[in-house]
Amino acid sequence: MDIVQELLAGSRLALARAITAVENEYDEAVTLMQAIYPHTGKAHVVGITGPPGAGKSTLVDKMTKEYRRKGKTVGIVAIDPTSPFYGGAILGDRIRMNELALDQGVFIRSMGTRGSLGGLAKKTVEVVKIMDAFGKDVIFVETVGVGQSEVDVIKVVDTTVVVLVPGLGDDIQAIKAGILEIGDIFVINKADRDGTERLETELEMMLDLNSSKVAWRPPVKRTVANSGDGVEALIGAIADHISYLYNSGEFVRHRSARTKNELLLLLNEQISRHVLESVMAPGKLDLLVDSIEGHRQTPYNIVNNILADILR
Amino acid sequence: MDIVQELLAGSRLALARAITAVENEYDEAVTLMQAIYPHTGKAHVVGITGPPGAGKSTLVDKMTKEYRRKGKTVGIVAIDPTSPFYGGAILGDRIRMNELALDQGVFIRSMGTRGSLGGLAKKTVEVVKIMDAFGKDVIFVETVGVGQSEVDVIKVVDTTVVVLVPGLGDDIQAIKAGILEIGDIFVINKADRDGTERLETELEMMLDLNSSKVAWRPPVKRTVANSGDGVEALIGAIADHISYLYNSGEFVRHRSARTKNELLLLLNEQISRHVLESVMAPGKLDLLVDSIEGHRQTPYNIVNNILADILR
Repeated sequence: MDIVQELLAGSRLALARAITAVENEYDEAVTLMQAIYPHTGKAHVVGITGPPGAGKSTLVDKMTKEYRRKGKTVGIVAIDPTSPFYGGAILGDRIRMNELALDQGVFIRSMGTRGSLGGLAKKTVEVVKIMDAFGKDVIFVETVGVGQSEVDVIKVVDTTVVVLVPGLGDDIQAIKAGILEIGDIFVINKADRDGTERLETELEMMLDLNSSKVAWRPPVKRTVANSGDGVEALIGAIADHISYLYNSGEFVRHRSARTKNELLLLLNEQISRHVLESVMAPGKLDLLVDSIEGHRQTPYNIVNNILADILR
Repeated sequence: MDIVQELLAGSRLALARAITAVENEYDEAVTLMQAIYPHTGKAHVVGITGPPGAGKSTLVDKMTKEYRRKGKTVGIVAIDPTSPFYGGAILGDRIRMNELALDQGVFIRSMGTRGSLGGLAKKTVEVVKIMDAFGKDVIFVETVGVGQSEVDVIKVVDTTVVVLVPGLGDDIQAIKAGILEIGDIFVINKADRDGTERLETELEMMLDLNSSKVAWRPPVKRTVANSGDGVEALIGAIADHISYLYNSGEFVRHRSARTKNELLLLLNEQISRHVLESVMAPGKLDLLVDSIEGHRQTPYNIVNNILADILR
């Protein structure tokens, strides 16, 4: 596998090819992942999540420049949601092209979800691992944080940054108890807007209420991504979080949980694929649908029979 | 199974209990689904999808009142996205409580996704089937249309209504080619707002470009859900679509595709559950994680071994 050697030696072409192999599920992808696996685990993986329009892409770009100034290399995995309603990663990519594309220390990949049967999270994990083995110091995983796949993605990062904006409108409740569980750091972006104060107060209050239950009390940071205001302080907070993980011994537990989630993700994905492929021989599915429509079977009988048939 | 007899006889209590059984995956859920399956297929299932803030809940409420005025019974399944960022169904439910809760001809259920390992789409399909067997004439499935689960849900409805609003802001691309594929009817809600004209023109243009490829050219309707403007015309468009499905013979093909998707969804779901349960005996998962962390195995070896082990 000379692609692996080239990847580990720092070839950006090999990096791009490896990612493409995983995304398109080429046969060599599994062998490749096998080979690079021992070289992973060094990067700091940072998840950036928040509603559409929160300015996540711009924030990631600004943070990337800041990390580059500090001499760190950066990988960015931007997840394009399945939804046809958001421009998300595609839009973000276009903007980024101008600013970061020429920097050899930055590698950006957008992941689309259309057409993949729930495989997004697995593929994202694999792309992160490839960038990790390649030697990226920091890897951002950017997602709108909606839907099961996106939640699965967040389970496999070290630090989760939740990006909110003031005044999301009356139909969208920006603050719900659920976000407290997932965020290690909260950012109020577009903090030059009306409503920043109020959002901050509410967030701090909710985090205080929750703080007795947790060892790490998530900080709330203000940024204006467009101007770069607050970006350096945000990077400081991310560094604080990783230090906390190391110093508290929490890092080991956290990485174990991550490994467990990755394993379950992979297992679930491979089993579904295997079974669907082996069961769904050409024409067979149509016969089964016929038998349901002819009231000779229900989907429940069929699935039970298939399970009995293929599982030991 | 007297709950099935009661359900078929029109007991709302039995309906609620059956839905709860499916949602919480009680043991009797499979038997129940088996028993009601032959009684399904009569309802017209209408998917309502669109970005958060488009006013889907209000629109569904107004359409429900209109159907009730015509003497039809209505079921509503509102899908609360996994995302902690949206109020979605919860918010919608609260508003609905005042207006529709007292009507015996309406049954509303919110489905949450938190904590369920990708099981949302399957459960939604089952709740729809239960409402169908109960005898609801029209069943709305309301979703923000983001994420794989939500897309899976849309695959199992008869008619898909895509709700858009003018002026979603510069970070959100409201119109992308992808929505053309999923919508049978397009609605511009909040059509008293600036930008309605432009959105309508763009939509119509895109639909015209696409129209040579399709037998049904989706209409674009304007509504103001708050005032009820345009709701009757929208219901007319939904009726037109179902007539088109029947008259063109497309209905049979469409339902077959639906049945196929439902079968695949159920199969995928049951297999994942079965395998994860049987493989992941207490303590076993931790040992596997240990062996990955100790570099004795990779997740790829492990998954291959498990597959070889459990599949014939």
